[in-house]
Amino acid sequence: MGPSGVTAEALVRPDRLSARLQALAMAGRESGGGISRFAFTPAHTEACLLVAGWMEEAGLTVWIDAAGNLIGATEGEDGPVLAAGSHLDTVPQGGLYDGALGVVAAVECAQALRDAGVRLRHPFAALGFADEEGYTFGIGCLTSRHLVGELPPARMAEIHDRDGRTLLQRVDAWRCPLPRRPAPRLAAFLELHVEQGPVMERGGLEVAAVTLIVGISRTTVTFVGEANHAGTTPMDARHDALAAGARLVLAVRELAVTAGDAVGTVGQLEVRPGATNVVPGVAQLRVELRSGSEEQLRRLRAAVEEAAQRSAAAEGVRVSVAPWHQVPPVRLDERVVALILEEAGRRGLRAARLHSWAGHDAKVLAPRLPVGLLFVPSRGGVSHSPEEFTAPGQVAGGAQVLLDTLRRLDRVLD
Amino acid sequence: MGPSGVTAEALVRPDRLSARLQALAMAGRESGGGISRFAFTPAHTEACLLVAGWMEEAGLTVWIDAAGNLIGATEGEDGPVLAAGSHLDTVPQGGLYDGALGVVAAVECAQALRDAGVRLRHPFAALGFADEEGYTFGIGCLTSRHLVGELPPARMAEIHDRDGRTLLQRVDAWRCPLPRRPAPRLAAFLELHVEQGPVMERGGLEVAAVTLIVGISRTTVTFVGEANHAGTTPMDARHDALAAGARLVLAVRELAVTAGDAVGTVGQLEVRPGATNVVPGVAQLRVELRSGSEEQLRRLRAAVEEAAQRSAAAEGVRVSVAPWHQVPPVRLDERVVALILEEAGRRGLRAARLHSWAGHDAKVLAPRLPVGLLFVPSRGGVSHSPEEFTAPGQVAGGAQVLLDTLRRLDRVLD
Repeated sequence: MGPSGVTAEALVRPDRLSARLQALAMAGRESGGGISRFAFTPAHTEACLLVAGWMEEAGLTVWIDAAGNLIGATEGEDGPVLAAGSHLDTVPQGGLYDGALGVVAAVECAQALRDAGVRLRHPFAALGFADEEGYTFGIGCLTSRHLVGELPPARMAEIHDRDGRTLLQRVDAWRCPLPRRPAPRLAAFLELHVEQGPVMERGGLEVAAVTLIVGISRTTVTFVGEANHAGTTPMDARHDALAAGARLVLAVRELAVTAGDAVGTVGQLEVRPGATNVVPGVAQLRVELRSGSEEQLRRLRAAVEEAAQRSAAAEGVRVSVAPWHQVPPVRLDERVVALILEEAGRRGLRAARLHSWAGHDAKVLAPRLPVGLLFVPSRGGVSHSPEEFTAPGQVAGGAQVLLDTLRRLDRVLD
Repeated sequence: MGPSGVTAEALVRPDRLSARLQALAMAGRESGGGISRFAFTPAHTEACLLVAGWMEEAGLTVWIDAAGNLIGATEGEDGPVLAAGSHLDTVPQGGLYDGALGVVAAVECAQALRDAGVRLRHPFAALGFADEEGYTFGIGCLTSRHLVGELPPARMAEIHDRDGRTLLQRVDAWRCPLPRRPAPRLAAFLELHVEQGPVMERGGLEVAAVTLIVGISRTTVTFVGEANHAGTTPMDARHDALAAGARLVLAVRELAVTAGDAVGTVGQLEVRPGATNVVPGVAQLRVELRSGSEEQLRRLRAAVEEAAQRSAAAEGVRVSVAPWHQVPPVRLDERVVALILEEAGRRGLRAARLHSWAGHDAKVLAPRLPVGLLFVPSRGGVSHSPEEFTAPGQVAGGAQVLLDTLRRLDRVLD
């Protein structure tokens, strides 16, 4: 292979990227402007058909795999495929960029290569995963697991939605008029995504190469005191479960701040019986910790448990601590990180290494193959909201580095 | 009038009191043992008919007033009546004593007088108020207000239940086959009630004379921060509404403890959006303060507002503070307190003055006429629960002092 300088130039088209992001946003758009596009719904079908048209325009053959993922691949070539993509689903009342950006950019890569008459050494596939947000089945990064063999039919027959319908049933019953075929074997995967946080904007970055996706620890802490009359129960006779919960809320925040490179959140707190004139008998909290270090995550989890015990003791209540979700950090391929930063530099874009504090399909694939995850900035750090915004120039910059990195990978991979 | 020593002895019957409390508990008893007896329901009708039978046995004429209160009165006598009673309704899953005790004891007074052949100078009425707990219409001590002219038909046509039916409509539609007549004018009112707190048990008291019913201040505090991704939002970029709420929960408790003779409670706390992986954007708390001093209540309310502002500032969130319920403390008639303590002493019972930390119908009547409120102990301070318990001997002691005080009042009142 020659140095990249001598290969034909292939450029993404900013106008096409913007127009397609806007068009895709119509699938599932609600009257208030938010986008609610969940796996296997008519909005999802609409999105698939729209993207399928663009894939075909880019010379790709389109189908749906057994987990409902949309695949557009170059045909007639052997061997594992170089893939790019992201997810087609959104959170309820989501925005324009989360997921959709990576799918539209992947198709744009194929289109730009075709426009420039450039042919990769490897077969290429643009991917649109069916369910990443976890809205329908309660499991994040769900359908990308199929690409690495983690969703055999037996498992798909267990996972079910709120109505008890299994993933297998939902895919089978899905009225999407695209052919069904097995997913291709992947050689490598690149994902372009919005940061969903404020770090790039704060630092004036245009592109980031994600080095690591942080680990997550989720724990339910339940304080049980004594529900009692809020008038007749003297302060020194109380066993107030909420007072213990309040201590823990503040302790979790303090632990994360002190730890440094970590976040800690209590996003749910339920009080029972929940009456103005009753001292709370039960307070149930869900504590989430995230860190790039598995060791730090372990330390924090232990510290939260200790803080829960101390809070309970201080208020004379009982406590139970139930961890229910532990995902270790996932390190991405350092060679791919280096390629992304090199290519961003070649385009004159301000780029840096970054942790991803949110989960992504890239995390599912990373343990099995070379994976790269590129971020572009989110204005104000806002995501999972109709207010989500990334400027067209930033979108195009990210998509161009995606394409450039894809071409470098095509050359360096077997 | 002569000294009480020369009047005929009239004694309550402990066995009859216990049996009637048990019998009344069947009206509205649920399978789990709790009693759910709400105004104008079939359980309420059942209770009225049962108590009406005992009233008639005691020589009283029975009717229902315009607000649905059960009245059993001596007939053929002129002038305002000496009354005793309490409420017939319960909280959901309530206990045997709260309210029922005062009604059964009032009827027992009439019965004991009749058994002993004692005739009071004043006409007498036993009262069973329809709605004190506030469950159905959201207003505590509701129907006793009718006795002091605070529930004119126009007001009864405004107050409505969850289904939009007004108090007037509910009383009119109530299928209770007892005569309807206006309520009598009251000369004085005595109420026997369970303490619902642990103070008497702790102090080894058998009877208490309530000197004051504490004031209540209720305020809704709403913290509004920014809902954001719990992974991608760094700790120093958060505006966490729940963290501010947690600070306030602890501040309310600290303020009440420091104040001394006061209680402060956060019984409700709602977090929005309430997802494990979202930094809380809104935390709404209901703060309740109680104190026997209006001045202290005012100071505490101001201190809670300051604490809310400080909590908001510390977390970079906005706050709104909305007081929605203010009831000043009500002082009971000191002459009646003295009579209760004298009569308790005469019976050899350990008695003392006490504040009532819960609201009672006595509070509604106290500003208009001489009112006495007697407490007997609640085991473990438990109330509003099927676990509510007062020993038969304590019930009988309280009822006897009620009767003795009634006879003293009958002599000292015009």
